[in-house]
Amino acid sequence: MANILLISGSNLELLGEREPEIYGTTTLVELVEIATKTAESLGHSLEHFSTNAEDEIVGKVAEARKSFDAIIINPGAITHYGWSLHDALAAFENPIVELHLSNPHAREEWRKTSVVSPVASGIISGFGADGYRMAIEAVDGLLKKAIQ
Amino acid sequence: MANILLISGSNLELLGEREPEIYGTTTLVELVEIATKTAESLGHSLEHFSTNAEDEIVGKVAEARKSFDAIIINPGAITHYGWSLHDALAAFENPIVELHLSNPHAREEWRKTSVVSPVASGIISGFGADGYRMAIEAVDGLLKKAIQ
Amino acid sequence: MANILLISGSNLELLGEREPEIYGTTTLVELVEIATKTAESLGHSLEHFSTNAEDEIVGKVAEARKSFDAIIINPGAITHYGWSLHDALAAFENPIVELHLSNPHAREEWRKTSVVSPVASGIISGFGADGYRMAIEAVDGLLKKAIQ
Amino acid sequence: MANILLISGSNLELLGEREPEIYGTTTLVELVEIATKTAESLGHSLEHFSTNAEDEIVGKVAEARKSFDAIIINPGAITHYGWSLHDALAAFENPIVELHLSNPHAREEWRKTSVVSPVASGIISGFGADGYRMAIEAVDGLLKKAIQ
Amino acid sequence: MANILLISGSNLELLGEREPEIYGTTTLVELVEIATKTAESLGHSLEHFSTNAEDEIVGKVAEARKSFDAIIINPGAITHYGWSLHDALAAFENPIVELHLSNPHAREEWRKTSVVSPVASGIISGFGADGYRMAIEAVDGLLKKAIQ
Amino acid sequence: MANILLISGSNLELLGEREPEIYGTTTLVELVEIATKTAESLGHSLEHFSTNAEDEIVGKVAEARKSFDAIIINPGAITHYGWSLHDALAAFENPIVELHLSNPHAREEWRKTSVVSPVASGIISGFGADGYRMAIEAVDGLLKKAIQ
Amino acid sequence: MANILLISGSNLELLGEREPEIYGTTTLVELVEIATKTAESLGHSLEHFSTNAEDEIVGKVAEARKSFDAIIINPGAITHYGWSLHDALAAFENPIVELHLSNPHAREEWRKTSVVSPVASGIISGFGADGYRMAIEAVDGLLKKAIQ
Amino acid sequence: MANILLISGSNLELLGEREPEIYGTTTLVELVEIATKTAESLGHSLEHFSTNAEDEIVGKVAEARKSFDAIIINPGAITHYGWSLHDALAAFENPIVELHLSNPHAREEWRKTSVVSPVASGIISGFGADGYRMAIEAVDGLLKKAIQ
Amino acid sequence: MANILLISGSNLELLGEREPEIYGTTTLVELVEIATKTAESLGHSLEHFSTNAEDEIVGKVAEARKSFDAIIINPGAITHYGWSLHDALAAFENPIVELHLSNPHAREEWRKTSVVSPVASGIISGFGADGYRMAIEAVDGLLKKAIQ
Amino acid sequence: MANILLISGSNLELLGEREPEIYGTTTLVELVEIATKTAESLGHSLEHFSTNAEDEIVGKVAEARKSFDAIIINPGAITHYGWSLHDALAAFENPIVELHLSNPHAREEWRKTSVVSPVASGIISGFGADGYRMAIEAVDGLLKKAIQ
Amino acid sequence: MANILLISGSNLELLGEREPEIYGTTTLVELVEIATKTAESLGHSLEHFSTNAEDEIVGKVAEARKSFDAIIINPGAITHYGWSLHDALAAFENPIVELHLSNPHAREEWRKTSVVSPVASGIISGFGADGYRMAIEAVDGLLKKAIQ
Amino acid sequence: MANILLISGSNLELLGEREPEIYGTTTLVELVEIATKTAESLGHSLEHFSTNAEDEIVGKVAEARKSFDAIIINPGAITHYGWSLHDALAAFENPIVELHLSNPHAREEWRKTSVVSPVASGIISGFGADGYRMAIEAVDGLLKKAIQ
Repeated sequence: MANILLISGSNLELLGEREPEIYGTTTLVELVEIATKTAESLGHSLEHFSTNAEDEIVGKVAEARKSFDAIIINPGAITHYGWSLHDALAAFENPIVELHLSNPHAREEWRKTSVVSPVASGIISGFGADGYRMAIEAVDGLLKKAIQ
Repeated sequence: MANILLISGSNLELLGEREPEIYGTTTLVELVEIATKTAESLGHSLEHFSTNAEDEIVGKVAEARKSFDAIIINPGAITHYGWSLHDALAAFENPIVELHLSNPHAREEWRKTSVVSPVASGIISGFGADGYRMAIEAVDGLLKKAIQ
Repeated sequence: MANILLISGSNLELLGEREPEIYGTTTLVELVEIATKTAESLGHSLEHFSTNAEDEIVGKVAEARKSFDAIIINPGAITHYGWSLHDALAAFENPIVELHLSNPHAREEWRKTSVVSPVASGIISGFGADGYRMAIEAVDGLLKKAIQ
Repeated sequence: MANILLISGSNLELLGEREPEIYGTTTLVELVEIATKTAESLGHSLEHFSTNAEDEIVGKVAEARKSFDAIIINPGAITHYGWSLHDALAAFENPIVELHLSNPHAREEWRKTSVVSPVASGIISGFGADGYRMAIEAVDGLLKKAIQ
Repeated sequence: MANILLISGSNLELLGEREPEIYGTTTLVELVEIATKTAESLGHSLEHFSTNAEDEIVGKVAEARKSFDAIIINPGAITHYGWSLHDALAAFENPIVELHLSNPHAREEWRKTSVVSPVASGIISGFGADGYRMAIEAVDGLLKKAIQ
Repeated sequence: MANILLISGSNLELLGEREPEIYGTTTLVELVEIATKTAESLGHSLEHFSTNAEDEIVGKVAEARKSFDAIIINPGAITHYGWSLHDALAAFENPIVELHLSNPHAREEWRKTSVVSPVASGIISGFGADGYRMAIEAVDGLLKKAIQ
Repeated sequence: MANILLISGSNLELLGEREPEIYGTTTLVELVEIATKTAESLGHSLEHFSTNAEDEIVGKVAEARKSFDAIIINPGAITHYGWSLHDALAAFENPIVELHLSNPHAREEWRKTSVVSPVASGIISGFGADGYRMAIEAVDGLLKKAIQ
Repeated sequence: MANILLISGSNLELLGEREPEIYGTTTLVELVEIATKTAESLGHSLEHFSTNAEDEIVGKVAEARKSFDAIIINPGAITHYGWSLHDALAAFENPIVELHLSNPHAREEWRKTSVVSPVASGIISGFGADGYRMAIEAVDGLLKKAIQ
Repeated sequence: MANILLISGSNLELLGEREPEIYGTTTLVELVEIATKTAESLGHSLEHFSTNAEDEIVGKVAEARKSFDAIIINPGAITHYGWSLHDALAAFENPIVELHLSNPHAREEWRKTSVVSPVASGIISGFGADGYRMAIEAVDGLLKKAIQ
Repeated sequence: MANILLISGSNLELLGEREPEIYGTTTLVELVEIATKTAESLGHSLEHFSTNAEDEIVGKVAEARKSFDAIIINPGAITHYGWSLHDALAAFENPIVELHLSNPHAREEWRKTSVVSPVASGIISGFGADGYRMAIEAVDGLLKKAIQ
Repeated sequence: MANILLISGSNLELLGEREPEIYGTTTLVELVEIATKTAESLGHSLEHFSTNAEDEIVGKVAEARKSFDAIIINPGAITHYGWSLHDALAAFENPIVELHLSNPHAREEWRKTSVVSPVASGIISGFGADGYRMAIEAVDGLLKKAIQ
Repeated sequence: MANILLISGSNLELLGEREPEIYGTTTLVELVEIATKTAESLGHSLEHFSTNAEDEIVGKVAEARKSFDAIIINPGAITHYGWSLHDALAAFENPIVELHLSNPHAREEWRKTSVVSPVASGIISGFGADGYRMAIEAVDGLLKKAIQ
């Protein structure tokens, strides 16, 4: 049984309302529910941490080194310039999954840089709410592989 | 009558003291006074929100979607890299005015990128303290146009 | 009482007809009327100079050094490549306001370079017709500040 | 029940042998097996098409417009320069999933451009063999969403 | 029957004499004759407008909105930096053909940017004098297609 | 009488169906018919060669050196990266016409590089199906000029 | 006797544990101890301020204008994108020392931009824990020079 | 005896008044006098042509092909973007001297591109008024060398 | 005794005829003869594989992993964009020699990128036909060194 | 006791006279004195090597491999382009300190590249003469750490 | 009477022989003779210093600060990368003339950067041997102006 | 019988000791021996010239124009910035072979520019010590071809 930390970055609390043609109509609460159920069905526990502040994510990731087996992170726009987040994640030694509801590579130029990608185990983007289920299952897979 | 939110970003609390040859000698309190008076003379109310933290602006803008008719924002240096602010403002559906005391295009190269400009209704820069009166009046104009 | 020169650059005579979703439905004649009335109400006189030719603007700006207290200029697309205009304005010692109906920073990449911005006192963009009133009032403010 | 086309591009037949520290030890046959089983368990059929030739993928994608409900594609290095593949996929109207075993964004600079990403519904990268299961399930999700 | 405006930009009056190894030996008068004959044989009328001044082309294009069914334009070197011309053509709602005697893409780097291409219906380059006949016939085709 | 080789590159067999708002509704068979009729009416013969594979075009162009008087080529997206095609065409000594249905310069950034343009006699783009008639006539003109 | 402010930015609380092959094995507490002892031995007092949040550093630097004679700052990854920090430091009139444990110029490309360097009096990087002693002594030197 | 054409481009009529710390205090009339006297002392005649309009320079250079033995040109800021001027000068077959009062390479980045340099015989910059004497003598030298 | 695979990429079958001032007058058959004789004189066997198709080279290199001791490859223009070839060669564990008849670094800008160079043991370019003899001898040297 | 080599590169013999507002008023002789005294007080010996010639530094560094325990180098402007110096230092296995009197990152763009930084143990810049004391002490620290 | 230092940089001793179509047929001895005679006729003395070594020029310029009134320098290819030369000249307080036989701006891209131009009083290029006479006379002019 | 000049540039005297995993274990003396023996076995004489100083190579190449039939040059890191060397070699009319022990294209970005390549007859890199034998034989081939 693993402890999984799900981190939601900037502007994600608006999900469901904000630009639904891009981000879909599911709310953050519903997304977390999807993730939690998937985690529990696989025997894992999930903690959700949501903030607009990069420094709070950095702090949370630092603590997570001792208490979590994996991180799933959708940093919102912090993805594209939060190099402190990069360094925090670089120091985390377990699996990291980068998760986006939309596909940033099909959008503006500045969304093509990700500070997380160079330190992520894997990336899932463009599948909307279903990405949350996928990410938990992917973490489950990565953890099993690590044990082998 | 409209509710206008005036947002002051990083380093603006030093106004009046910091590099007066660039930013002028008016203090932030005085600037807000100018804006408030102008707003009231036009029958609007003004709330001022001041912080050095991008995440707090992001949170405030998210709330503002329900309660404000317009945003005037002088983000300070957050202008040039705060892409979370961009996404927050992109989700705000009423008028947005980007406001700068100095003219960033006449300064360092990195000041030429603005994360706010692509989502702003209009931009005012370089008029010092008078820009605050102009911004309120400009919002007044944008709101009247929207009603027509 | 000040003499203000309002300069209209390339393609502005089409205003009201051309791409109204970007430039609005007000004609150039109407814009000048707005500016004139505002100027007169503040005790200033306004001369309007309109041309598609950069060289004619350059010539007018050169003459203006002797006879005008401020320049408001909407150069149209000359904004983005007319370096002779830059040099002409650099030699003008009174306030210069750069004015655009739309917000160039929210459009094509090539509209992000302005030859005027480095030599402008202030910039107003994106407020449509109302920008003309704002520019006159801004000039009034700049001139008062200069006298102090 | 849906018909899913799984496309394997250049150098994938070497999987299991070639640079296992990057691509893992699973062979292409095994990967297809994972995908097939997942598809069947969800009531879908899967066809696998494997080639080193971009033009053959282009031809296959063109045919697929009539007979397949979704495409999952791991183009190998064709990902990074095969613009004909881009155009072929752009003309395919059902869901497209871009799939990579490793995370290209954590490797050489030239692997950061993908001709597929701008036309993909979603992207999965860095999960090794497990990505094949994930991709099928993601397609299942996308198809259900399309029906709603 | 359509009114076609043929515009010749900078340095074209030297044609026939200037760098004949690049631009051929036909004079501008002869090119216009070719265009006129082709137009008349198809039942159209042609007006030719020739100038070295971008502003005069801008003015002519503005007028042309009311009186011409199509524009064929060989802007000479104005092609590569005349953004006012871009904006003027963007406001013209009928077909626009960009025409060059030589093939700019086989020459200096700076000739690869065209301010006209983004707003042109079609482009013909490198066929020397014969391009003028081709352009008229192409306009004829575009107009017929528009009627359908 | 001349032998003309018409080459159709990647994704052109989908013409008429694929993205008709960009490429029109004419099919490749119809385009070839237009070209053939125009060629025959001018006393020339036409061979059409269609493939998604750059290497097959390269091979065909190599053979064409002995048996064709001109090449008309619409390479599809191979236009933008197929440097082997560039070298093949560079070794062909008779006229080469580069042909596109749409205007690549009004589309994505990557469509602005053409490997064919530096070795083409002339370029025709943006005229849809009519471009095929134009290209044949242009070749006819180039061959007549070569004889003089 | 001078008051020195030592600022520790993002991810520094992990020092000693995080990537010791890059950052060494000394903890932040130990580094502060080194700095404090050095300061005291030179007759100065030291205050340490540690946070992952750029805005808190910005606020602290603003206050420091009144109460500190020098700032030593190791901003962590904020170094590379925190332009608000740049503006805060630009308004501080006493000596500023930029301090890094490792040598950023020998690492990733994005670590070569520093928002602090343009406003720093001096830079010390790559000496690990010893850099903290060096920085205090350097400040001592800068202050003595300022007095002369 | 040779006919020399001296061309003055944009903003040069302000010389002597405009930014004297860069351009010196000599007026354009005085500069022409220096050039005329030097020319006459060497047995040459000089015509001076002054305009802010690139198109007029282009027209003048076209005429000059028949009647002048050399061109000396100080194009003002047209130097940096007037590609039509480039093409006009490229068609002039006698010596061309590019002349600047100040040294553009010691100023802003955009002043480092010259459209004239690639087609100039020689360049003189930074010598202020004395450059006009130098340019005439340089032309004299170039013409003598051409005769040999 | 070693098995050497010599691979000839795009457009090489035209050698001897195509642009002889760049590529020389020796035919591909003769080049292979030179290579074969040199190989045999050193006790090695040589297989030659020639194609215009990148995918066939990729396939051949994949097979070669089991049966060849070294690869000599002149990829023609595939050198400059064939990243699938890069990946194929990266998986080959014996010596690889990149071979060009001309010196690509003395030609067009786009010939300066080679997808092969980062994975080649050594490079020989610019020696024309003699390069084939040199490459075989170089392979002989590399193999002997590997044995030591 | 360690042997330290202090290397002074181009233009440093002018120190004290040349641009004192940038480089201070201390002469090179005085700087060496500071370094020598600091070294001796720590029980080390110092040799100073001064030259304007990169090749002489390269030669000296090569010899130093056998006889010195550390190098401190202020290369002057050789810092920014002397790649031979880079290679020489890369072959030196003991500590290397890069030292600058001023802070190159606060100056011209070209001063931001350092050929030394990628191979330096640590960097000290902007502390003027005091940097020489600091560098010696830093070397002392690095050597002690190496012994542990 | 002034002392003028003429400096000849790399490869200039080959003048007269090397690539005469670019550099002319005059030898360095003859160029110096031209310069000397011109200097003497104006009452000045000239010393010539010729070397292929940048460091020797740097040393000579350092000495020249005490004994020369002006420097004329043709650095050869050192012009394009010798930043130590830049710093040496930046410390010379009297007039500096940059001199080239050919016009570097009409040649390869890398010849467009000059380390000397930012610190030169004036530039003369493209006039061949006559440039040496011009440079002396220009220095004479600069010195007279300095005296006024 | 030909005279061959072998030039060794910066840092090559350290060969055998310096970074043997990149440059191998053969010393420069041994490399010269290999070259000399190969030259003599082919009836040629070899002179070796070794220096860290670019200017000495420039001087040697200038002399070599009279007395040598070919140059083989391994410039060390001078390869990447020594444009004076470029100009010296450009003036040498006999064969030039650029030689590197390692393959610079598989290393740092800055090693991908070579000032020698644009003027080299041929290039050999990555074959270690064996490259010296190859280079001599290649020169032998080039000289024989020149005679034919």
